[in-house]
Amino acid sequence: MHNLKDLESKASGTRIPLNQVLDQLPYNEQGLIPAVAQDADSKEVLMLAWMNREAIEATLKNGYATYYSRSRQAFWRKGETSGHLQKLVAMHIDCDGDAILLTVEQSGPACHTNRPNCFYLKVDGEQVEIISEPETG
Amino acid sequence: MHNLKDLESKASGTRIPLNQVLDQLPYNEQGLIPAVAQDADSKEVLMLAWMNREAIEATLKNGYATYYSRSRQAFWRKGETSGHLQKLVAMHIDCDGDAILLTVEQSGPACHTNRPNCFYLKVDGEQVEIISEPETG
Repeated sequence: MHNLKDLESKASGTRIPLNQVLDQLPYNEQGLIPAVAQDADSKEVLMLAWMNREAIEATLKNGYATYYSRSRQAFWRKGETSGHLQKLVAMHIDCDGDAILLTVEQSGPACHTNRPNCFYLKVDGEQVEIISEPETG
Repeated sequence: MHNLKDLESKASGTRIPLNQVLDQLPYNEQGLIPAVAQDADSKEVLMLAWMNREAIEATLKNGYATYYSRSRQAFWRKGETSGHLQKLVAMHIDCDGDAILLTVEQSGPACHTNRPNCFYLKVDGEQVEIISEPETG
């Protein structure tokens, strides 16, 4: 059994069973880990959402990003109702296992407001400016 | 007072006082919000860390990413000891205020393991592979 701390000093190319890694991720008290979705083409950071172990496994199995909605306390296959699916290109886990990076092909806008991504509030000095419009049609 | 929900329908170019936005971010029970650091040049996602309101304000004031370390329960100006500072280029907040995106100029490796970024554990089928080496020298 490798723990994540042991892996820090291991060489590139070292491989460990996925299950061993998922077993020891430091899920929070709700069983969740933050996941960042990045567009595979534009490299834009699209959104941050949360995954539990089941959501991680569903994402890997089905090939589409599935999150866990904290407000609805339910699984949430991104785009299930809107059609704005995120096709998984790659999944990376960080050094201490407390964040996940999903590289995705995003269909349509990523944000529930119909903006291309969720990070549309830009800090500008003592103000915050909205920097994109909802897509229409 | 605009709340974040009201802002969803507002046009690009709308401006709101920063303090109003920071007042209503949904900080977790520890007073924290996840922050994603992205390299301004390569667009690589470098790391995910946590900020409280004071860390957000310190980052904006000083122009260098400052986080809050959950394990050490202390402020942590990224690179303060290693020299691997993150110069702030831009800060964005997401639609519902529960994530922050920092665009940064990263000095040296972003990861405490001396790898260029923290997301070096790549899921490959039923295995996880280490995909980068610590930088030396």
